[in-house]
Amino acid sequence: MKVNGTPMRTIWPEPDGATVGIIDQTRLPHELAIARLSTLEDAAHAIRAMLVRGAPLIGATAAYGVALAMRRAGDDAALEAACRTLLATRPTAVNLRWAIEDLRALLLPLPPRDRAAAAYRRAGAIAEEDVLCNRALGEHGASLIAAAWEKKGGGGPVDVLTHCNAGWLAAVDWGTALAPVYAAYDRGIPVHVWVDETRPRNQGASLTAWELGQHGVAHTVIVDNAGGHLMQHGRVDLAIVGTDRTTASGDVANKIGTYLKALAAHDNGVPFYVALPSPTIDWSIEDGVRDIPIEERDPAEVTEISGRTGSGDVVRVRLVPETSPAANFAFDVTPARLVTALITERGICPASPEGLLSLFPERRARLAGE
Amino acid sequence: MKVNGTPMRTIWPEPDGATVGIIDQTRLPHELAIARLSTLEDAAHAIRAMLVRGAPLIGATAAYGVALAMRRAGDDAALEAACRTLLATRPTAVNLRWAIEDLRALLLPLPPRDRAAAAYRRAGAIAEEDVLCNRALGEHGASLIAAAWEKKGGGGPVDVLTHCNAGWLAAVDWGTALAPVYAAYDRGIPVHVWVDETRPRNQGASLTAWELGQHGVAHTVIVDNAGGHLMQHGRVDLAIVGTDRTTASGDVANKIGTYLKALAAHDNGVPFYVALPSPTIDWSIEDGVRDIPIEERDPAEVTEISGRTGSGDVVRVRLVPETSPAANFAFDVTPARLVTALITERGICPASPEGLLSLFPERRARLAGE
Repeated sequence: MKVNGTPMRTIWPEPDGATVGIIDQTRLPHELAIARLSTLEDAAHAIRAMLVRGAPLIGATAAYGVALAMRRAGDDAALEAACRTLLATRPTAVNLRWAIEDLRALLLPLPPRDRAAAAYRRAGAIAEEDVLCNRALGEHGASLIAAAWEKKGGGGPVDVLTHCNAGWLAAVDWGTALAPVYAAYDRGIPVHVWVDETRPRNQGASLTAWELGQHGVAHTVIVDNAGGHLMQHGRVDLAIVGTDRTTASGDVANKIGTYLKALAAHDNGVPFYVALPSPTIDWSIEDGVRDIPIEERDPAEVTEISGRTGSGDVVRVRLVPETSPAANFAFDVTPARLVTALITERGICPASPEGLLSLFPERRARLAGE
Repeated sequence: MKVNGTPMRTIWPEPDGATVGIIDQTRLPHELAIARLSTLEDAAHAIRAMLVRGAPLIGATAAYGVALAMRRAGDDAALEAACRTLLATRPTAVNLRWAIEDLRALLLPLPPRDRAAAAYRRAGAIAEEDVLCNRALGEHGASLIAAAWEKKGGGGPVDVLTHCNAGWLAAVDWGTALAPVYAAYDRGIPVHVWVDETRPRNQGASLTAWELGQHGVAHTVIVDNAGGHLMQHGRVDLAIVGTDRTTASGDVANKIGTYLKALAAHDNGVPFYVALPSPTIDWSIEDGVRDIPIEERDPAEVTEISGRTGSGDVVRVRLVPETSPAANFAFDVTPARLVTALITERGICPASPEGLLSLFPERRARLAGE
């Protein structure tokens, strides 16, 4: 998507054919800083310190991390060490594990001298596949926005509410929840996004607002408390969110607070869509509320926040009394009954076992065989 | 309630018989600062700049403001000027208007030389009435917490979720939503409060957490996004919130985000109570979502936040890209169908026209006559 009028991705091979460029997302929204990854350690640090975040982008960065390691030394020991180092950066990230295992399986049979070139090619292909997948998802989702626009009959832009950042900054390009918004915008459909700030890490206020603004999409930042009120008063035409994990029954684990917005959408007859590339589907789980473990993160993310002072410094400030404890649940689970439909790279389907199997029929045979 | 082990109120006449002490709530939670009001202008400033906030406390402060004015000059012109000045501080505050009109009607027939003494007496009585009203409300509400404790059979404390600050800092003492918590705590019932931080003004993280901590009540601060997840996992026994305005049908307008928590409570079978002193009932309104106007406040409350730096300074920082607009809706309306019961100073009743009239039968005749 565009930054200051120029197309940009979150990760790219530099023209030197060796190093890799990324946007350092820890500096957004206050500064667009580019970081250059030259070594395996650079890539591991970028993932660990969240210069890059979002499942697809983490996967692509890990793949380039293996390539950077192979450039220095292509032997088996170096390959295994690189895989171990990268795997340890974010141990629960599914795409990370998948990308590393993919590279390892590809490279091990090759002669060491061929591994670097093969790794760069494969990392580039992984990034490209993510772009194509999300672009397809975006085109499918844009049809829902187009339908809302027709239904509205030209009375103002289509108002989309989103939570957290499932935009191009979380992927290589396009994003998931925001891919339909960008696709609709590119078709000339007037669209306006209500951006939940998404406490505690404020990915909405800092990342979603920034990327929408840079691409030119109209948007308004709101606190996470506001969505219900907006829906009660007919000011949201549809909601689209991303998901970190989708069960075989269509339950979705996404950023904490997603469930509350889904309840409000349901109570007010507002369609609530979840956008997901199919790798986020966990076919082994049926009941998301019962079976998806929810990560508890550092309470300091609740008790403190970062922002820019009037003089331009970015500082961290405390919001809560020193003696008050806090708890920080990172995700919640929205039951399938509250999800109007799932938007995938293969099309749109009901949030149900049958719905998912209709798009992924190859799973039917596999599930039957289990 | 207690501060650092000593009972304290939000407003009190100083021993000099002239000035009035208040807690400067703009300095909380980082500092307990006492301000002394010596003049009408001091009182008006305290209300306008939100050194005091919360409907009952604003009313009591305005009453003392009239007394401070009368101490300087008791003539009709001074009285009318004081009323005008105070009314203009927060034009939409119902208790403010009520307290000022009450004082004006009391003082006008009196000889000017008697007005100051009468005004101090009446201001003290208004404060005392608030304390008695909220204590009664607290005792009624504590029975609900006691019942939850019995039902739980001693398996850990009763977990209460609250939103915003409807504690003693919003009143003269006790508070509304927190009065039942304090009353239960004083009865020896183990109680733990999940405190919604309550963006954008963070009254939960700064005021509710502070007052609960000072009184010794166990509590944990959470982001506004977290309540649904906690309820899904059985970690909330009941929710209690306050209200700025209650309709004759039992709809409640309260801090933005209350509606989302009520939806989650309803979806998970968690009782959702609203605590209110009867003056917040607006008997002229039936449909809260349709008829209660929702204040839109300065977007800077969303785009910026105050906190304390590591070096102890309280600073304001920006959270949102410079070019991103924000919207700031202050309240939302929770329909009566989502409210388990209303807790008032006269007892507990269903959130319905019949429920309210059962506690306030004098209204039945009046409504019939309208």
